[in-house]
Amino acid sequence: MELNKRQEQIIQIVKDFGPITGEAIAEQLHLTRATLRPDLAILTMAGYLEARPRVGYFYTGKTGGQLLAEAVKKLTVQSYQSRPVVVDKNVSVYDAICTMFLEDVGTLFVVDHNTVLVGVVSRKDLLRASLGKQELTAVPVNIIMTRMPNITMCRREDSLYEVAKKLIAKQIDAMPIVRDTEHGAEVIGRITKTNITRAFVDLVNNETL
Amino acid sequence: MELNKRQEQIIQIVKDFGPITGEAIAEQLHLTRATLRPDLAILTMAGYLEARPRVGYFYTGKTGGQLLAEAVKKLTVQSYQSRPVVVDKNVSVYDAICTMFLEDVGTLFVVDHNTVLVGVVSRKDLLRASLGKQELTAVPVNIIMTRMPNITMCRREDSLYEVAKKLIAKQIDAMPIVRDTEHGAEVIGRITKTNITRAFVDLVNNETL
Repeated sequence: MELNKRQEQIIQIVKDFGPITGEAIAEQLHLTRATLRPDLAILTMAGYLEARPRVGYFYTGKTGGQLLAEAVKKLTVQSYQSRPVVVDKNVSVYDAICTMFLEDVGTLFVVDHNTVLVGVVSRKDLLRASLGKQELTAVPVNIIMTRMPNITMCRREDSLYEVAKKLIAKQIDAMPIVRDTEHGAEVIGRITKTNITRAFVDLVNNETL
Repeated sequence: MELNKRQEQIIQIVKDFGPITGEAIAEQLHLTRATLRPDLAILTMAGYLEARPRVGYFYTGKTGGQLLAEAVKKLTVQSYQSRPVVVDKNVSVYDAICTMFLEDVGTLFVVDHNTVLVGVVSRKDLLRASLGKQELTAVPVNIIMTRMPNITMCRREDSLYEVAKKLIAKQIDAMPIVRDTEHGAEVIGRITKTNITRAFVDLVNNETL
């Protein structure tokens, strides 16, 4: 939303002198309180200012973009997650590749007999392995996987924004969603760049905000 | 932004009777024009209503989410694109895999001697090929690539939102950005789910809206 000149002036005054009453703002602008009322109402409604009874107006420090940012930040992993595709740590690289094609995913999570996460294997890892000289049916997937503690994980209630940032920073396509059990981190979901892309599309489709 | 009850009522009245003057709205609500002024100002500023001199208030048909949606829709491919990684259509599958690892990308664009796009090859295509029995250095990449006219392309000025939708619908990770030349579509960029994820993060970082 675009602010007019007077609204910009009001924000500046509240920034400099807040908390400040509506009367005091009006005085600085050589206007009446009544004249300012619509502008103060707009700025409060839009989240730029906060009003406290018997104290006055505060500057919240928020711009229009920041208010949008807050809405995006509230999106959580659980609204966009996919189901995880897991393989046992003892399966061969060949079987892992078959699972990846059958399930049509780009990342597999490797688990032990308690379905506790022990590794992650990507299409890139499998492609690298397939170039090697070893027989793929003879190499267990746990030889080529990324293992704990080098796995970036998240939880259901985490913000989608934080996860998106980590996917980019760590240059990975997917992250396991885990929950704690007595044996370790159990895999309960998967969050990928595809899920983030879908969240981006949903912003326009207006289903989230 | 959240609307209060009176603002909801005003929107309903303008929806039903617009264009309608502020006085007429006030009358319907049994309030004075002055009392309504802040609410009308807010609704106009926020884009829900439009005011035309000597005509009155219109309902724009836009909700808060829709106004956000408009801002997201304005983002274009060129603000988020990556540089394309291309290989000649005559290189071997083995060399294509090497290029993919060296450049650390998930998709290669295959071009002819005029740098005109003739195919696309993904990590998945290469992984599938690597499982085959053929010698990878002996198979040209053009045997396994997705070829024209089955390639989904976009242009620099396309909306990022439309591209994101297509990436999901076609279940692909990346799309070539092309421009027309006398020989055909020349590859000038690459747009991926990573780029969309970055755009999503930027919404929060407030660099785009």
